[in-house]
Amino acid sequence: MNALLFDHVTQLDLTGPAEVFASAGMAVNLVGRTLASGVTDGGWSINPSHALESAPCADILLVPGGGGVDPLLTDEAYLGHVRRLAAGATWVTSVCTGSLVLAAAGLLDGRRATTHWASRPLLERFGVQVLRERWVRDGQVVTAAGVSAGIDMTLALVAEIAGTQVAAAAQLEMEYDPHPPFRHGSPEESDPEVVRAVLAQVEARRGPLVDRATQRLKG
Amino acid sequence: MNALLFDHVTQLDLTGPAEVFASAGMAVNLVGRTLASGVTDGGWSINPSHALESAPCADILLVPGGGGVDPLLTDEAYLGHVRRLAAGATWVTSVCTGSLVLAAAGLLDGRRATTHWASRPLLERFGVQVLRERWVRDGQVVTAAGVSAGIDMTLALVAEIAGTQVAAAAQLEMEYDPHPPFRHGSPEESDPEVVRAVLAQVEARRGPLVDRATQRLKG
Repeated sequence: MNALLFDHVTQLDLTGPAEVFASAGMAVNLVGRTLASGVTDGGWSINPSHALESAPCADILLVPGGGGVDPLLTDEAYLGHVRRLAAGATWVTSVCTGSLVLAAAGLLDGRRATTHWASRPLLERFGVQVLRERWVRDGQVVTAAGVSAGIDMTLALVAEIAGTQVAAAAQLEMEYDPHPPFRHGSPEESDPEVVRAVLAQVEARRGPLVDRATQRLKG
Repeated sequence: MNALLFDHVTQLDLTGPAEVFASAGMAVNLVGRTLASGVTDGGWSINPSHALESAPCADILLVPGGGGVDPLLTDEAYLGHVRRLAAGATWVTSVCTGSLVLAAAGLLDGRRATTHWASRPLLERFGVQVLRERWVRDGQVVTAAGVSAGIDMTLALVAEIAGTQVAAAAQLEMEYDPHPPFRHGSPEESDPEVVRAVLAQVEARRGPLVDRATQRLKG
């Protein structure tokens, strides 16, 4: 499978699903813009295995999110390669705000999908029917909610592709029996003031970029 | 904080906690044996920020696990640096079979701790009181169960260090509201035949190494 790697990617969007795939014995190509290292949100430097222009298609395309999606939303050359890799894949998937990249590439037109909770209003502006689910499958397109939701989505996807036994073995290998110490994993369970502040911050930073991206799609 | 990076590390042992720290605004040094790239269980190449010999101490030491711990268990030079970094840290932590490295370095003597479920019998041979918990705190030493348990442990640790508000904001940022699609995250919930097979496999591969490591500690 192909996973996109770009600067300021939210590391766990990428590494959570990759660990599930690795536990299920599936190899993950890391597709950078070039072969230069990508630097994650936490400042880590990871080396791509393939460069975007020459990356071969694979059965699964995974688009992670993070602050690094912002410049991609109006980058026609990049979005063209996303469309190419999506057209050659059986499954097109995203984690977190990676769904905004799929939407900007025109790959979520009229579909049901999800994204990081703070970017739900932005994904709706692309004409996407945004659901408040942990992950959403619409045909061969599967999108996960924020960051950690990619682990849940990928376990379900592995079960679909390789069977429940393989997915169950991967889950046991990862000892994925989560016990979050607090109940603050969703905006519905969190302090409304904190939620409002984050939504306003995301709108201020990313809203104008989404408007430009949706105008390009209409134009 | 310092996180150890070695070949055949289980990637999520390292990247799960790192994402929690990043979401809480805390920087994570990646300490390799040298500055050469480390290759994870899934074949990814990640670049260390520091080499072991010259890595400065930090407030937290995190030791991840994976197949790559095996050669470290009897590597006195490596274990000496682990002891040095632990002595200079306020918190000594491990995820998954990283606890075996702490034990081989003599850092878990007489303590309560945990590890990946399939290595519980091995950790007991070091004289550690092994608990079947998601994570265990004994004084300033905090150990997590397998792979994904590092996320739960790190959220609790961030709350201890920086306060519940910071941990809650990190959890919301990561949308950590897990919904595993299957109930196979612990050996108690899994097929007993699969569990027995994995335990036998781990004993065959790692048991003799643990025996050598415990003999070194006694000698």
